[in-house]
Amino acid sequence: MLPGIFWIVPAAAVITIIFALFLIRNVMKHPTGTPRMKEIGDIIFQGAWAFLKRQYSTIAMYSIAVAVIIGVLVGVLTSQEEAANISVSQLGIGWRTAIAFLVGAFCSGLAGFIGMYIAVKSNARCAAAAQRSLTEAVNVALRGGAVSGFLITALSLIGVTIIFFAYGGNSNPQIAPHLIVGFGFGASFVALFAQLGGGIYTKAADVGADLVGKVESGIPEDDPRNPAVIADLVGDNVGDCAGRGADLFESTAAENIGAMILGIAAYIATDNIAWILFPLCVRGFGMIASMIGLFFVRAKENENAMNALNRGYFVSIALSIVGLAVTVHFMLGNWWLFGAGLVGIAASIVIVFVTQYYTEWRYRPVRDIAEASKTGPATNIIMGMSVGFSTTFATALIIGIALLLAFWMGDKSGVYGAGAFGTAVATMGMLMTCPYVLSMDTFGPITDNANGINEMAGAGPEVRKITDRLDAVGNTTKALTKGYAMVSAGLAAFLLFQAYIDRVNFLRPDNPLTSVNIARIEVFVGALLAAMIVFLFSSWAIKAVGKTASKIIEEVRRQFRADPEILNPKDPAHPHQPDYGKAVDITTRAGLREMIAPGLLPVLSPIVIGVVFRFIPGYDAAMVVAAVLMVGTIVGILMASFMNNGGGAWDNAKKMIEDGQLKDDQGNVLGKKSFAHQAAVVGDTVGDPLKDTSGPSLHVLVKLLATITLVMCPLFISF
Amino acid sequence: MLPGIFWIVPAAAVITIIFALFLIRNVMKHPTGTPRMKEIGDIIFQGAWAFLKRQYSTIAMYSIAVAVIIGVLVGVLTSQEEAANISVSQLGIGWRTAIAFLVGAFCSGLAGFIGMYIAVKSNARCAAAAQRSLTEAVNVALRGGAVSGFLITALSLIGVTIIFFAYGGNSNPQIAPHLIVGFGFGASFVALFAQLGGGIYTKAADVGADLVGKVESGIPEDDPRNPAVIADLVGDNVGDCAGRGADLFESTAAENIGAMILGIAAYIATDNIAWILFPLCVRGFGMIASMIGLFFVRAKENENAMNALNRGYFVSIALSIVGLAVTVHFMLGNWWLFGAGLVGIAASIVIVFVTQYYTEWRYRPVRDIAEASKTGPATNIIMGMSVGFSTTFATALIIGIALLLAFWMGDKSGVYGAGAFGTAVATMGMLMTCPYVLSMDTFGPITDNANGINEMAGAGPEVRKITDRLDAVGNTTKALTKGYAMVSAGLAAFLLFQAYIDRVNFLRPDNPLTSVNIARIEVFVGALLAAMIVFLFSSWAIKAVGKTASKIIEEVRRQFRADPEILNPKDPAHPHQPDYGKAVDITTRAGLREMIAPGLLPVLSPIVIGVVFRFIPGYDAAMVVAAVLMVGTIVGILMASFMNNGGGAWDNAKKMIEDGQLKDDQGNVLGKKSFAHQAAVVGDTVGDPLKDTSGPSLHVLVKLLATITLVMCPLFISF
Repeated sequence: MLPGIFWIVPAAAVITIIFALFLIRNVMKHPTGTPRMKEIGDIIFQGAWAFLKRQYSTIAMYSIAVAVIIGVLVGVLTSQEEAANISVSQLGIGWRTAIAFLVGAFCSGLAGFIGMYIAVKSNARCAAAAQRSLTEAVNVALRGGAVSGFLITALSLIGVTIIFFAYGGNSNPQIAPHLIVGFGFGASFVALFAQLGGGIYTKAADVGADLVGKVESGIPEDDPRNPAVIADLVGDNVGDCAGRGADLFESTAAENIGAMILGIAAYIATDNIAWILFPLCVRGFGMIASMIGLFFVRAKENENAMNALNRGYFVSIALSIVGLAVTVHFMLGNWWLFGAGLVGIAASIVIVFVTQYYTEWRYRPVRDIAEASKTGPATNIIMGMSVGFSTTFATALIIGIALLLAFWMGDKSGVYGAGAFGTAVATMGMLMTCPYVLSMDTFGPITDNANGINEMAGAGPEVRKITDRLDAVGNTTKALTKGYAMVSAGLAAFLLFQAYIDRVNFLRPDNPLTSVNIARIEVFVGALLAAMIVFLFSSWAIKAVGKTASKIIEEVRRQFRADPEILNPKDPAHPHQPDYGKAVDITTRAGLREMIAPGLLPVLSPIVIGVVFRFIPGYDAAMVVAAVLMVGTIVGILMASFMNNGGGAWDNAKKMIEDGQLKDDQGNVLGKKSFAHQAAVVGDTVGDPLKDTSGPSLHVLVKLLATITLVMCPLFISF
Repeated sequence: MLPGIFWIVPAAAVITIIFALFLIRNVMKHPTGTPRMKEIGDIIFQGAWAFLKRQYSTIAMYSIAVAVIIGVLVGVLTSQEEAANISVSQLGIGWRTAIAFLVGAFCSGLAGFIGMYIAVKSNARCAAAAQRSLTEAVNVALRGGAVSGFLITALSLIGVTIIFFAYGGNSNPQIAPHLIVGFGFGASFVALFAQLGGGIYTKAADVGADLVGKVESGIPEDDPRNPAVIADLVGDNVGDCAGRGADLFESTAAENIGAMILGIAAYIATDNIAWILFPLCVRGFGMIASMIGLFFVRAKENENAMNALNRGYFVSIALSIVGLAVTVHFMLGNWWLFGAGLVGIAASIVIVFVTQYYTEWRYRPVRDIAEASKTGPATNIIMGMSVGFSTTFATALIIGIALLLAFWMGDKSGVYGAGAFGTAVATMGMLMTCPYVLSMDTFGPITDNANGINEMAGAGPEVRKITDRLDAVGNTTKALTKGYAMVSAGLAAFLLFQAYIDRVNFLRPDNPLTSVNIARIEVFVGALLAAMIVFLFSSWAIKAVGKTASKIIEEVRRQFRADPEILNPKDPAHPHQPDYGKAVDITTRAGLREMIAPGLLPVLSPIVIGVVFRFIPGYDAAMVVAAVLMVGTIVGILMASFMNNGGGAWDNAKKMIEDGQLKDDQGNVLGKKSFAHQAAVVGDTVGDPLKDTSGPSLHVLVKLLATITLVMCPLFISF
């Protein structure tokens, strides 16, 4: 019997979709501006569409191959006893996992597509709105962002719910979560490639366009004469929107499924399905809370747009707390678990302030980097690296304290899943505001693009001032989302480990994994390799950006050589147009080629480690893989913290100098084009692939490690 | 009864000291060159002396405070039962540990002092020798390096042996190793500050001198007009010589003591003291082997000096294998353990080739960085970071495979300490050639300084060509030593963990630590914090370089402003001398101030974590600290790999361009002063604090974590 409160899930899903449709209609009603702006918007759309089509064809091929492989492997490797145990045939487990994988992969792809589509459609409209008023521009950007934020989280909720019930969640709730782990794997598999491919694309185009445009040819950013400028604008959409959309889709899905697995123990003990359904319901309330919060964003014409966004965020949080209390009361009836959920919500607030401290120029870290720029690019880089490394302190402390508190409360609750269930509730609490956070995140690239379109369309300085201000706000919201995704990955880590251990013990009841003993030699070596994989992945991801960028640079140089009139038109009224399409095409090909190796690394390496160690007598491969998961998570999160925050700080140190906030000893402003500014531009360029390619991909990597080990678990167990 | 073979230890010690005296006499016999060279040599000596005096006064104060604290803590916290157990009073354990700490600290300081003293005395002589022949210069540099290499390792062997017997090693061999752990802690405590302080000094002076000299004023490197040039030369001696000397002193001491603790179990089972004395004897043979190897270095005038050094190295290795076989045969009588020792020796060979691959311009990584310099400093940095991260692959693989093999052989041996003893034998095998490696390492800064002295003394181009060639060889040997120190830290890791666990179980026999379960919440959080500490330490160390460098830059600018004739003398025959002493003094003060915070971080944080967690009910603080040690080691080693190799690659990419090896698409050489070269200079400057400050300090940090947890063990155990 489903608990009455469960109706919040379909209700929230339906309301959210209606809400999203209303938003789409609202956004689409806004005019696209001048014909030139519409034209640019269309070109961006075509470029993004072309990229996603190719990217998803590649990913689809891989997904189908992986689905077949895991179907066969899981089918063959699942023991007959185990199959009997869960009253599904071996083959049945195999194909169900494979199908779940494909559904997850498809939904993840769809999420990325939605993110990109709506964002692109909102760009030109936001640019046009900025010509009228700041308030209108904020509204368009935020509503455009909200469409993807809400649709993506709704899709994740609906997907998990449907596949849970399709796999017998109602009749056999203790088994269904094990059958749907493939969904999480599929989602994170696609998310990794989406984030990597998009991240490589966007930063290669950005770096490439800047290096030949700004540095070599001395033309401003987003200048229409630069053949790579459209590729740069396309990149914001396929990297930030599609990539982050897929990222948060798989986060919510994987963590939701992990939490359901943890609930099984309590279900078996109490025969109350509420323990398994709790994560779904709490997310339903979170969606409603986020929706109401969105209505509170009413930017005033002379107000900092960030304040308006913050207002909405805090309303969402307050309502989420109410929703959490209601769900806990009706489903779990245990106030310690409410406390655990509050811990997660508190973590999501703290990270906002911490990220602002490290990445806004009001505070010391960014000021230090700007100061260091006075003595050149080398000292700028050294200081930025130092700031980036130091941000791990706050990240580790927030995650560590939140985990200890949530676990303690889970333990105090006396509930069957014990402490780990507490961390699961904390994670679900944190994820309640996910739709709102994702809306703010997508706000970033929309305003960034609007700014670019206005520059290309030759809008006046007042208009650009508005979009410039929005762009700066967008930078902050983008940094916040990364902090949010990072901390949620950290909080979720423990529940996903526990889900893995539960699953090993489910498959190996006679020899349960009671300890992950890192003092065993093979476990220690596994942990060492896991940490190494994070470094190697980062190496390959940033190198991919460099390689792709060099292709773009060659192409731009070629176009400039082939037709000098692109740069210096004889008749300024009719300049020769560069071949934007060619640059987009080259970026697409190179970006997709370069995403393969770093993408396959975290997919294959835990499997290789697990399988190799399985065949060495005396080694416990399942334990080794657990250590790979845990230490990989630790190093992955800290490395992401370094890269995301360091990159953000470098970016804003440059912006601070451009804003005229840096002075020399005599009090003269060191502004644009100064020696310090040139140094800061180098720092910003170095930070770009860190903060937009490898950093965000590392969040996905951490989650992928969890889902892949969950699904591939039977591979590591000797029978 | 001591086994007969034990006499190798005093014999090797005596022979080594005689050998070192012979080398000193030999080096001192060489002339110091022109009066100008002698003068410069004297100024460097005074600067280095002034720095070490202040540095060691600071360190001495801290050491005495720490000795008192650990004396009291260990005395109070050791339970009466335990004290009775080892038939020493509680107070007796306390003061013995404190005294051992002080002796270790003193010897470590002495080792650093020896390293600096001999190196400085050899500089001017090497510079003068280069005016006659390459062979003579190689001989002076290598013999100068060998004095410190051999004296330091002899000191470590003698120190451990004497304190072992002084604390009753002959009558109670199962207890003495526990009493001397303080020696290892003292050694690593001083080594950390020596390496950090010296590393900050050397790189701040280097970066500062370059930025105001080369970049701002356009004068060449090591130009006598630069007020910071002497500080730069002093830095090479106090950083590379004194720092690395203290580093390898504590490595050999700590790993030796750890291996002796592991031997206790076998001693108790067999009543054969050989198990405990084995590490001492095998090191005695290693010293003899290294000494003979040194005789095989006979550089020919037209030969690459690296080949001559390699020849000697391989002779040392061959003889070490023989020595290992003899020791294993007579002391352990188990050929599986010989195999484990071979694994360690093999690891030390492999790392040589791997380091060369990553840091020499014959191979792809450095070439990639040089290529990336064509598009500016940003792409140079991105590529260098990518290369640095990717080096963790080889590091982790070498350490992982060596650990698994050595452990397996230890296990196969059927010996009581089981697998961990195998890794201990592997570590001791690897450390046999330590005197030789350390000699090669000190070769580096001596030639670097000789090069600088010749530049300052205005030597002709032929002479400079010789010292330039030697300098390049010195860069490679420095990189090799770091690789060696890193892999030995990795190999030793497991034996040190085991020593910690043995010690916990010795203190807590009723509740032994049988597993370090990272799936426990507090253990996982401890591991997360440990990884964070490595990032934070790196952040502070490189920031310290930046801060100190800015002080130097200010001073140089001040001197240039105060007396314009320093830069542009009216009468070139009598230029105004800059005030070198002032620059040295400022670097000294700033460097010492900046070393405090990063130095205390790894000392205090494991203690704070252990003590806080000890007082939380249900947590096992001893287990948490074990995880801190293990995960801190993993992340520390990989981070050091990134920093050391990345920094070396950046440096050599710059050298490759200066050597005219980089060409543009049309085949034109992009040499000195080209755009690509400027970009590569930025990369080199960024790499400097990574490879010479934080990277080498991280080796010490890893070992310090091990020794501090060994000593402070009673703090983490609730009775």
